[in-house]
Amino acid sequence: MSPPDPARLALNTVTVRERWNLQQAIEGCRRHGIGGITVWRQDLADLGLAAAARLLKTSGLTVTGLARGGPYPYADAAQRDAAIEDTLRGIDEAAQLEARCLILVVGGLAPGSKDLAASRAMVRDAIGGVLDHALRRGVALALEPFHPMYCADRSCISTLRQANALCDELGPGLGIAVDVYHVWWDPELEAEFRRAGQTRLLALHLSDWLVPTTDLVLDRGMMGDGIIDIPRIRRAMEANGFSGFHEVEIFSARNWWRRDPDEVLDICRQRHRTHC
Amino acid sequence: MSPPDPARLALNTVTVRERWNLQQAIEGCRRHGIGGITVWRQDLADLGLAAAARLLKTSGLTVTGLARGGPYPYADAAQRDAAIEDTLRGIDEAAQLEARCLILVVGGLAPGSKDLAASRAMVRDAIGGVLDHALRRGVALALEPFHPMYCADRSCISTLRQANALCDELGPGLGIAVDVYHVWWDPELEAEFRRAGQTRLLALHLSDWLVPTTDLVLDRGMMGDGIIDIPRIRRAMEANGFSGFHEVEIFSARNWWRRDPDEVLDICRQRHRTHC
Repeated sequence: MSPPDPARLALNTVTVRERWNLQQAIEGCRRHGIGGITVWRQDLADLGLAAAARLLKTSGLTVTGLARGGPYPYADAAQRDAAIEDTLRGIDEAAQLEARCLILVVGGLAPGSKDLAASRAMVRDAIGGVLDHALRRGVALALEPFHPMYCADRSCISTLRQANALCDELGPGLGIAVDVYHVWWDPELEAEFRRAGQTRLLALHLSDWLVPTTDLVLDRGMMGDGIIDIPRIRRAMEANGFSGFHEVEIFSARNWWRRDPDEVLDICRQRHRTHC
Repeated sequence: MSPPDPARLALNTVTVRERWNLQQAIEGCRRHGIGGITVWRQDLADLGLAAAARLLKTSGLTVTGLARGGPYPYADAAQRDAAIEDTLRGIDEAAQLEARCLILVVGGLAPGSKDLAASRAMVRDAIGGVLDHALRRGVALALEPFHPMYCADRSCISTLRQANALCDELGPGLGIAVDVYHVWWDPELEAEFRRAGQTRLLALHLSDWLVPTTDLVLDRGMMGDGIIDIPRIRRAMEANGFSGFHEVEIFSARNWWRRDPDEVLDICRQRHRTHC
């Protein structure tokens, strides 16, 4: 029953994005002794990529990830090609930021389609089409299975089992980002962590499932305020070789996004110790 | 690519419950040429069980199911025993109504608990504890896997795979109710239909997944208004021996529950033909 290593706490900028820009988020992490940060590509717009990369490097923070590549299911070839081009650029950005991975949010059904199998094939082919570039740039791609309630519009990859199957099919360079909010319900979680092992387990995202949940997207909870047994999931990953950061990613329009980010980070640090 | 048999359309009373009582729902089904009806135990309160049974029998409708038994995860022995007693009564009611099955909605996490494995064991033990009585009364128990977004508070059984595993473990008398709203996203659906086969495939519930979905419980769509490939699922079940009704069960506080039920049933009949 090992406790979480306090040095492994990381922040996903979306948790504080309503109030802080990238520079403020970096300063906040340093002020609160948070060692890692995952940034979004839109966070880079203000400073530009090169300046953001310098700022992150001098901050001493580990860039735990860059969000995101995707979505991949398409209505036509132009849409398909644009998504692939965008992910290739994302890989280059992740390389320049020295990010530990580029998070892939693969997309749901293709526009106008009800054909899940076809969308999943599009996802496979798109990732297959960018993997060589990622390997050349030394950027790990982290496929993030999303909760099945997002299957239609955000990710047709819903389970660790599907993610592992894609990793099996596409080979080295592709791994998995585990978000407890998306996968906590899955009875096959431990088995799929074992199957994934150290090389595929690239990231761990933390928040909590509230009861009741009032919005499908923007009502995540702070760790400890919901019903996810986070320590069980974190330990199971670490027992299978995961040694990365524990990254707080809270979408919360009605609560956490409205609060003072310094208060949010205080509580993140405390809850990391007590509920992760 | 066989079309749906119009004679197999059935109504779950929840679809019209805001406006119609049981007697009105029965008359509505007859008026619209709908051959089956699934009733809820609370629908029986006005008439009493015996009178409701007589009314259903003289209506000529097939009672496609009785909802529900459960939830089973408990905080203490008294709660556990009460749930089992309640399901035993539900079995007797289903027998008297000559219902094709008693639907089990097994419940989420036990009160105050985050231990999914423990809740799942409670579900297994509870169903195991009522199965003999169901077999003696000739009532099939239909375990209904619920969408993973209900795992915390409605059903810790989320997939066909879990349901099949419970059927394997507990033996004859237990089968499965398939609701397209709950399972459409599951990449293992076809494989689990094959595994279930004719004897376990007891019921098929229809509605549609809207994009966006604005409420986790009360925002289901009419067949054809969302993104579920209903014909694919219906045909896959029938290819594996399912020969029961296609039962419309729509929870829709903002739309269908507000409409004239005669209009709703007209549209159900039409959409059954065109989108199921």
